[in-house]
Amino acid sequence: MISNPVIDTMMAHRSVRRYTDEMPSDEVIETVVRAGQQAPFAYQCYSVILSRGKNPFDAPLLFTFCVDLHKFELIMEKRGWTRATNDLTAILFAVEDASYMAQNMVVAGRSLGLGSCFIGAPLGHPEPFRERYNLPPKVYPIVQLAMGYPAEEDPVRPRYPMGFTLFEDRYPELGDATIEEAMREMDDGYMGQGYYERINYMVPLPEGREEKHDFTTYGWTEHISRKLGLWADSLEEQRDQIRKCGFDV
Amino acid sequence: MISNPVIDTMMAHRSVRRYTDEMPSDEVIETVVRAGQQAPFAYQCYSVILSRGKNPFDAPLLFTFCVDLHKFELIMEKRGWTRATNDLTAILFAVEDASYMAQNMVVAGRSLGLGSCFIGAPLGHPEPFRERYNLPPKVYPIVQLAMGYPAEEDPVRPRYPMGFTLFEDRYPELGDATIEEAMREMDDGYMGQGYYERINYMVPLPEGREEKHDFTTYGWTEHISRKLGLWADSLEEQRDQIRKCGFDV
Repeated sequence: MISNPVIDTMMAHRSVRRYTDEMPSDEVIETVVRAGQQAPFAYQCYSVILSRGKNPFDAPLLFTFCVDLHKFELIMEKRGWTRATNDLTAILFAVEDASYMAQNMVVAGRSLGLGSCFIGAPLGHPEPFRERYNLPPKVYPIVQLAMGYPAEEDPVRPRYPMGFTLFEDRYPELGDATIEEAMREMDDGYMGQGYYERINYMVPLPEGREEKHDFTTYGWTEHISRKLGLWADSLEEQRDQIRKCGFDV
Repeated sequence: MISNPVIDTMMAHRSVRRYTDEMPSDEVIETVVRAGQQAPFAYQCYSVILSRGKNPFDAPLLFTFCVDLHKFELIMEKRGWTRATNDLTAILFAVEDASYMAQNMVVAGRSLGLGSCFIGAPLGHPEPFRERYNLPPKVYPIVQLAMGYPAEEDPVRPRYPMGFTLFEDRYPELGDATIEEAMREMDDGYMGQGYYERINYMVPLPEGREEKHDFTTYGWTEHISRKLGLWADSLEEQRDQIRKCGFDV
């Protein structure tokens, strides 16, 4: 593993959910946003709304990243074009572009002493954000990024072993040993840091399903399996939410 | 604008489409991938396939980023859970997570002297990539990243003025002057660098539509308007492509 200031900044990443009340200067904010903008893009079809103060986690800054085809269509109109690409394809490209920018902002922020935390809520339920930020049709808020100077820093969290994320030339058969090793790496990492015990939280089970875990056995794979096993908005609901943003998906 | 090694590396980004034939060392590759993995995630539902050699742009490295619910469901199964979250929501979260990782790799790569270029082809047409990489159902390749040591570097490309990307508190009415300023910034930037003239390319018009541009007037907004105005896979086609990857969208 090679070390340099960029790599070291990335490797020091952990989400921050407690901030001091120091408001970053305009110069700091502009540097972070400008570095974000310089990320590569396919179509630059996104916008970012900034709120200062009164944010989740009491973060001084909150950035809301939006898929934005509205702005793009205004440009197309001035050029005498109408969009032909369907909304689903356009949204997927825009989510990529917005995410590249957002991730640059995470790392640029940390290089300036700022911590941050993504908030995934808008993706499935954009409506309150559309109202709050006066978003026009064809603007779909997908993720928020809280940011500020950390009041405390958690340990760096584990990731899957590299061999469970990176494959060469072809997707391999994933045997029991490989899967279990990846699960162990994540679970031992989170439990070794006492992560869920400290936040005192296990995703509650539905009635009739017996709780067999405590904080000595409840790790990341159980936590995340419960989320995707219990958070059950239907396809139709997700589509409806995106349609309410003015898209045909 | 504040300067430090992280910000400067981001601000120096431009896509690279010509590479030397020097193969990056395993240590360099592992550093880039590991720094990528440390990006934040919602569910870590992605995989990356690496190909060395015989790649687009003759890049020594090609990374293919995939939404991967297959791997995740194997973990859920071992924990006694079945996924309830619908496929569209899961895909959107996974595209975000994969993009955060990919963008870290772009910047980590540049910090080690590597250039890169995203290739958006798989998103709309995943089938050939599924075959080539032996991808199981519920794995959807969304974007590729070519990477290697640059044989030449283009100038840094312009972006929208910050005021056209970042709004505070509420989405503003975008008047003609604002839109035209943003268009001018992009168009003058690309034309001033002779971008389309050097690659000798304008998106061809359909029969019956008269070409009124040459390289003195063909800028980024015309180029990108033609792409989204002419590249017209239907919603049904995009859905079919994703369905062939084993998802219900």
